[in-house]
Amino acid sequence: MAPTPNPRIVFAKAPVAGNFLVEGENIVFEQTPTIDLDQKLESGQFLTKTLLLSPEPYMRERMRDPSLPSYGTPMKLGQPIVGTGLVIVLRSEKEGIKAGDYMLGFTPWEAYTVQPYVGPRVEFKGFAPGTFDMDTLALQPVPNPGGAFPWRSFCSALGLPGFTGFVGLENFGDAKPGETIFVSSGASGVGSMVIQLAKIKGLKVIASAGSDEKVEYMRSIGADAAFNYKKSSLQDELKAHGPVDIYFDNVGGEHLEAAIDNMNLNGRVIACGAIAEYNIPREKRHGIKNMGRMFPLRLNLRGFLITDHLGMQPRFLAEIPPLLAQGKIKVKEHLFHGLENGIEAFQSLFDGNAMAKPVIVVDEQYAS
Amino acid sequence: MAPTPNPRIVFAKAPVAGNFLVEGENIVFEQTPTIDLDQKLESGQFLTKTLLLSPEPYMRERMRDPSLPSYGTPMKLGQPIVGTGLVIVLRSEKEGIKAGDYMLGFTPWEAYTVQPYVGPRVEFKGFAPGTFDMDTLALQPVPNPGGAFPWRSFCSALGLPGFTGFVGLENFGDAKPGETIFVSSGASGVGSMVIQLAKIKGLKVIASAGSDEKVEYMRSIGADAAFNYKKSSLQDELKAHGPVDIYFDNVGGEHLEAAIDNMNLNGRVIACGAIAEYNIPREKRHGIKNMGRMFPLRLNLRGFLITDHLGMQPRFLAEIPPLLAQGKIKVKEHLFHGLENGIEAFQSLFDGNAMAKPVIVVDEQYAS
Repeated sequence: MAPTPNPRIVFAKAPVAGNFLVEGENIVFEQTPTIDLDQKLESGQFLTKTLLLSPEPYMRERMRDPSLPSYGTPMKLGQPIVGTGLVIVLRSEKEGIKAGDYMLGFTPWEAYTVQPYVGPRVEFKGFAPGTFDMDTLALQPVPNPGGAFPWRSFCSALGLPGFTGFVGLENFGDAKPGETIFVSSGASGVGSMVIQLAKIKGLKVIASAGSDEKVEYMRSIGADAAFNYKKSSLQDELKAHGPVDIYFDNVGGEHLEAAIDNMNLNGRVIACGAIAEYNIPREKRHGIKNMGRMFPLRLNLRGFLITDHLGMQPRFLAEIPPLLAQGKIKVKEHLFHGLENGIEAFQSLFDGNAMAKPVIVVDEQYAS
Repeated sequence: MAPTPNPRIVFAKAPVAGNFLVEGENIVFEQTPTIDLDQKLESGQFLTKTLLLSPEPYMRERMRDPSLPSYGTPMKLGQPIVGTGLVIVLRSEKEGIKAGDYMLGFTPWEAYTVQPYVGPRVEFKGFAPGTFDMDTLALQPVPNPGGAFPWRSFCSALGLPGFTGFVGLENFGDAKPGETIFVSSGASGVGSMVIQLAKIKGLKVIASAGSDEKVEYMRSIGADAAFNYKKSSLQDELKAHGPVDIYFDNVGGEHLEAAIDNMNLNGRVIACGAIAEYNIPREKRHGIKNMGRMFPLRLNLRGFLITDHLGMQPRFLAEIPPLLAQGKIKVKEHLFHGLENGIEAFQSLFDGNAMAKPVIVVDEQYAS
């Protein structure tokens, strides 16, 4: 059979640490690769078609000079970037996996793949203790009973972002009804899950984001007080609506400092990301000058990585899908159509242009 | 009887927030007051003679403009400053207290006092939740079975400093043998207790202080690696002797930032003070730029105030005195002789001149 186009997005060149990735230089869309869909599969292999891809902030950290240590193994230069996605199996020579199965997990950003995809696998040695081998987040079968919710939910509420919000709040929030939570990046995949879970738990929710449209969205999913931090003062807003018992930090920097200034006694800070800092060299970052409040306020600041908590996934997949199906948790994805718009989708995580959770629709049938 | 001299140290004027206290302006030694030691005592009163006084860093926070909120009630202007001390009862009209009793607790910095001392009592209302009414740390009888250890231990290892080190490490350290702890202000009352308890628990101890003499002292009580942060680089020392599993923070600022840079996975930061920041206005403080390490390293930062943990005192007074009597915990006090040197003793907490725990010897009989 004639070769079929297999466009892909490649990690072409490591950026200077603390700089934004440049499209066409660090990450490159390649239109021309092809694949023979009739090729013979070895035993244990299966061929998948990519349906949806989920750009997520942690991927930025993996696209680095491989010699720099970090919390996850790096991506491989010259190979397609890898992230969570939804695929469908076309043919299989692997036991237990058959044509028509839907699978979720790490998959390369390309149209078709012979799985398991071993191209970018980093040999997991020489990394510091606690480094997570990202490539072990292998494809798993996914259920979607009766089509109760759109497949794209697996790239938002039911994917890593939703799971991260769930785990952070459940494990480290110690949330009590009537308390106040502040969520930064409240319109993001993680933030929007935290807002909605917090409302279900009876909390008052303050949420921030970087555009008026996002503020509207955060209000629509239940935030009691929502504000655009580019237009109003973090300090003023938190003073008006606080004090804050729990701060769910997706941002770091000035947000963290303002939250600490407005924490209540025995306040908790849950940190799962510092999106304000990924692309800024250290010397230019905002220095936090109020850590001395930690002891008079008896604060507890806790950082976590979702990869330590994968064991909670069964509970997550038992509790959240019903809430989603019943409309108690609402999801909003920002759809980017076609792999050729994948880089824009990824960059939107950092330039503030993503409205809710960006999802790359590779197969248009799965857009709705 | 003729009036007896009753010299005292008075909180004369609130300092500008974030400035050092100035002797003779903010805190003043008064030589001329007198007391009639034969005065009639009302029922419930008792007359005490001050033997030893314990200058402690938290007192700085109490000497502020009373309109400023903080974690403890403020001291009263125009009144003697108040802190923990050892007194002996001369006469008593209070049930259960008799002449010759030794008592420990809050007492004014003066030679003789009619107790309970109500002069500085702040009416405890109008303060933010969580503000501790410092004046409730009332005098309590103290045991010293068989003179097993010097009385001045109650101003160091057996006083609030030792108790603070004990509580912090016990409650929040989660220390496991073989782990590494970094203690800043390691020659202080709190720090020296933490070093010694950590060694008993089988930890490797890195300790910092601001003079070579203190470094020698920290080594003599068991620190495996001790350094003078004014002479060598925090970063280099921690890199050489870390990574750090537990950081016991008495300092804040650059120490905290360097510790975070050198933390191990799942590291704990225990914060009970930020002595580097008490006398520096916020805008001039060192800004911490590496809080983003909190989540990849899964750090847990925990602030505490000893006043929340007074219920642990019986356990503390059961466990530590035997260790002290057996020489397993050593204590070094820096004695300041005479109330007239009390201000110098207090300031030594902040100017780095205190060697170990400063103690004011008001009655020279109790110096040894």
